[in-house]
Amino acid sequence: MSFQKLDDLGHKLEALEHALAILGADEATHMAVGGGEKRAEAMSSLAGMLHRQATAPEIGDWIAAAEAEPLNDEQQAAVRELRRQYTNLTCLPAEFVERQTVARMRSEQLWRSLRARNDWAGFLPALEGVVALVREEAALRAEALGLAPYDALMEQYDPGNRAADITPVFAELKAFLKDFLPRALAMQEARLAKHPLKPLSGSYAVEKQRELGLAMMAAVGFDLTHGSLSVSHHPFCGGVPTDVRITTRYKTSDFLSALMGVLHETGHALYEQNLPKGWSHWPLGKARGMAVHESQSLFVEKQIGRNPAFWRWALPVVEKHLGEAWSLDDILPHVHHVERGLIRVDADEVTYPLHVILRYELEQELVAGRLEVADLPEAWDAKMRDYLGLSTIDNPADGPMQDVHWPGAAFGYFPSYTLGAMMAAQQWAALTREHPSADADLAKGDFSAVNEWRRARIWSQGSRWSTPDLLERATGEKLNAVYFTEHLRKRYGG
Amino acid sequence: MSFQKLDDLGHKLEALEHALAILGADEATHMAVGGGEKRAEAMSSLAGMLHRQATAPEIGDWIAAAEAEPLNDEQQAAVRELRRQYTNLTCLPAEFVERQTVARMRSEQLWRSLRARNDWAGFLPALEGVVALVREEAALRAEALGLAPYDALMEQYDPGNRAADITPVFAELKAFLKDFLPRALAMQEARLAKHPLKPLSGSYAVEKQRELGLAMMAAVGFDLTHGSLSVSHHPFCGGVPTDVRITTRYKTSDFLSALMGVLHETGHALYEQNLPKGWSHWPLGKARGMAVHESQSLFVEKQIGRNPAFWRWALPVVEKHLGEAWSLDDILPHVHHVERGLIRVDADEVTYPLHVILRYELEQELVAGRLEVADLPEAWDAKMRDYLGLSTIDNPADGPMQDVHWPGAAFGYFPSYTLGAMMAAQQWAALTREHPSADADLAKGDFSAVNEWRRARIWSQGSRWSTPDLLERATGEKLNAVYFTEHLRKRYGG
Repeated sequence: MSFQKLDDLGHKLEALEHALAILGADEATHMAVGGGEKRAEAMSSLAGMLHRQATAPEIGDWIAAAEAEPLNDEQQAAVRELRRQYTNLTCLPAEFVERQTVARMRSEQLWRSLRARNDWAGFLPALEGVVALVREEAALRAEALGLAPYDALMEQYDPGNRAADITPVFAELKAFLKDFLPRALAMQEARLAKHPLKPLSGSYAVEKQRELGLAMMAAVGFDLTHGSLSVSHHPFCGGVPTDVRITTRYKTSDFLSALMGVLHETGHALYEQNLPKGWSHWPLGKARGMAVHESQSLFVEKQIGRNPAFWRWALPVVEKHLGEAWSLDDILPHVHHVERGLIRVDADEVTYPLHVILRYELEQELVAGRLEVADLPEAWDAKMRDYLGLSTIDNPADGPMQDVHWPGAAFGYFPSYTLGAMMAAQQWAALTREHPSADADLAKGDFSAVNEWRRARIWSQGSRWSTPDLLERATGEKLNAVYFTEHLRKRYGG
Repeated sequence: MSFQKLDDLGHKLEALEHALAILGADEATHMAVGGGEKRAEAMSSLAGMLHRQATAPEIGDWIAAAEAEPLNDEQQAAVRELRRQYTNLTCLPAEFVERQTVARMRSEQLWRSLRARNDWAGFLPALEGVVALVREEAALRAEALGLAPYDALMEQYDPGNRAADITPVFAELKAFLKDFLPRALAMQEARLAKHPLKPLSGSYAVEKQRELGLAMMAAVGFDLTHGSLSVSHHPFCGGVPTDVRITTRYKTSDFLSALMGVLHETGHALYEQNLPKGWSHWPLGKARGMAVHESQSLFVEKQIGRNPAFWRWALPVVEKHLGEAWSLDDILPHVHHVERGLIRVDADEVTYPLHVILRYELEQELVAGRLEVADLPEAWDAKMRDYLGLSTIDNPADGPMQDVHWPGAAFGYFPSYTLGAMMAAQQWAALTREHPSADADLAKGDFSAVNEWRRARIWSQGSRWSTPDLLERATGEKLNAVYFTEHLRKRYGG
C-alpha cells in the first residue's frame, strides 16, 4: 500500500528533522564556540539527506497511488498535505536552487558588513541579483502551483494566503492606523502629563528573572516536562514538540524585555507542545504556518501579556520573584508604550503593522517588476514619511537594509507578521464571545478556559486546513480588520 | 577513483555520527524529561541510517578497488582502517543482530528490576540466553577475522589485543597484587594510626565546585572553546572532537568526587580534542579504542590527579575556589585511600585490577563454554575470596549481577579498564625518562611538556596503529606490568 510507504518515510524524515531541530537549538544555546564549523558541515549534510529523501521521484508516484487508495479522513488529509509539501519542495529545478543559494549567501554576508557602513550603493548589485532570482522563483512556483507569482511566494509560509484577500484588509488597517497613530500618541502624552512615567529601575539578578520567567511559562500553560528555557543571543522557540526549547536574553537593569520575550516564545511553544501527537511524522501534524504561529505567540504576548487584567495577577508574581511592588499605573505605561520608530523589530503594537504594510506593498512591486531595486530607497522613504512621518533617505541601514529578510530572499514572508497580530485579536474576540469571563480568568491567573479554546480550535488542527480556513473555522468568519482595530482602540485610544 | 567515493562517504557518515553524538550528550544534560521517547525514536532511526550507509555492499568493492589504487601513506592507512571497520560491522548476519538485540534489551531490562531484588535465579535464564548468543557472536567474528573467539570479541574494543599477550601480564599483576594489597592496607593503617584521617568536611556550593572544575580543566589543557562542562547523572565524555561535552555530578558535602570525575573526563576530552582534524571523517581519525582511551583518562586522573606533586599546585587552587586550606597530609590520605570492596566501579587503584582480572578470567571461561552461567555465582565467589578476601555467595546483586556489561552482552570489554591503567603508568614512566622534570612541572601547574609528549605519541596518531603497536611506539616497549606495579608500590607501598 502506497500510504504505508509514505507513513514509513514520514518516520525517517521526522528523525532527520528532530536532529536538525535539536542541533539548531543546541548551536544557539550550548555549543562551544569552536564547534561551529563542524556543526555547520553536519547540519548542511543532514539537511541535504532530508531534502533528497523528501524529494525522491518515487514519492510522487506513491502520493498519486495513495490518493486512489481507500483512506480514512485523517489519512486523506495526510496525503493532501504530503502532496502540498512535495510540490513546494520539488517545483524549483536543482540548478536554480544552487544558483539562488549562492546568491543569497553572498548577499547575506555582504549585508552584514555593508549595513554597518550604511553602504547602499555597495549593496545594490547583490540585492539586484537576489531580486532577479526571486522573480524567477516566483514565476517557477506560480507555474507549478497555478497561482499568481506573489501568492506563490506567500504559499510557502501560509497556505491559502492570497494578495487579493489580504490587500483590502491591510488597506482598511492602514487607513485606520494613519489616523489612529497621532491620536494614540496624543492620548499617551496627555496621560503621561497627568501621571509621569515611573522608571522600573533596579538591578534584577538573571537567576531571579529566570525563575520569574519559568513561573510565568508554567502558569500560562507551558509543559516543563516537554520543554525548557535557556539563554541565547536572540530569543527563539526551537526544538521538537516533545521537547520545545525556548530562549530569552537578560538585562539586569530591565526585567520586562526578557519577560515579554519569554511570553512571546511561550506562545509559540504552546502551539508546538499541543500539536496532535499521532500526526507528528506527517506534514499534517506540523503547525499550519508562519502567520498562524505568530498569531499564537502574539496571542500570549499581546492579547494576554499586555492585557491590564493579566497584570492584576502578574504583578504580585513579579513582586514575589523580584521583590519590587509596582501598581498597575506604574507598569501599564511601559507595557503599552507607543513610539514612531525606524526599525520594525523594535516597534510596538500600533506602529508595527505600518512597517509591515510598507514591506508588503514594496515587495509586491519588486516581484512584479514595477519597482527596481535601484529606486527602492526613494520608494521606501516616501512610504515611511507617509505612514510614520519619518525619513530614511539618508539612512538606508535603517531603511531598506534594516533586516536580513530581503538580502536572504525571503519575499512573501512579511505579511505574516501583521496577519498574525490580526488573527490573534480576532481569536481573542471570538473566545471572549464564548467565554465572557476571559478577562476575569486572566486576573486570577487562570488560563485553562482560554487554552482549552485554543487547543480545540487551533493547536489540535495541525495543518488540516489552509490558513484562512483555519481562522474561519476557529472564529466563525474570515479575516476581519475590525477586531484588531477595536483591540488597538480599546488599549491605546481610550 | 574509489578512494574519493570512500572519502565522500566519510563526510556523510561523520554528519550522522555528529548528530548522534550531540543528541546523546544533550539527552543526558539538557533534554526535557518528556522528550525521551521521541529522542529514542529519532536516534534509533539515525543509527539505522548510519549502519545502512556504513555497511552498503558497494563499500566492500570500493575498499577493494581503493586498495589497488596508488595512494599515499595516509590514504593507505585510511583504507586499512576502513576495511577493519567494514569487516567488524558486516561480519554478523542481520538476522543474528536482530535476535541478539532483542535478547540483550530483554536481559538489560530484567537485570534492572531483578538486581534490585537480588534475584539471581530469576535472572539466570536471561543471562544464559545472552551468553549463548555471545558464544555464537564470538564464533562468527572469529571466522570473519581469523582470530580466536575471545580475541575476536576484544578486537571490537581495542584492535590488536590478544589473550595470549594479556594473560601473562595480568598473571604477573595478579600475583603482585595478591601479595601487595594486604601490605598496602597495613601500611595505610599504620599511617592513619600516626596521623588520623582529617575529614574534608564542609559545604561546597555547586557553582564554586563548577568554577574549580573549569579552572582545573583549563589548566590541565582542556580547550574551553572546543568543549564544555555540564551536569549529568553519571559523568561522561561525549560530543564531537570540535565540541567535547564532559559532565560531572556534585555533592555539596564532598568536593573531591566531582573534581576527580572532572579530571577523569578531561583525560578523555584531551584525547578527543587533539585527534588529527584532517582525518576526522575517517575511522583513521578516531581514538584508537577503549583501552587507549581509558589510558588517557586514567593518565589525567591517576598519574597526574593523584600525584602528590600535582596537589602541591592544586591545593592553593582549591583553596582559592572553596576557601578551605588543607595540607598535603590532609588531602593525600583521601586521594590514596585503599579499601577492599565488592563493587568494581567503587574500587581504588590497587583493588580495581583484581575486579577486572576476575572478570577477564570468568568471561573467557564462559565464552569458551568451560563455565556455565548456572555455575557463575560459585566461580565468582571463589575468585572473590581468593583475590579480595570477600564473599558474594549470598549476594549476587553485588556479585555477578553488579553491573550491566554482561546483561548487555559486552564481553571482551573488561580487560580494557586495567590495560588502560597499566598503559597510563607505562606512558608516565616513558615520559619521565624523557622529561625528568615532569613532577616538578606538575607542582608548578605546568602541563605543557606532559601534553606535548602525549600529543605527539598518542593523540595525533588517531587509529593509525593497533593498540599494542601504539603503546610500543609511544613507550619503546610492549605492555609491561612492571610500570604499573612500580607505580602502585611507590604510591601505596612506601
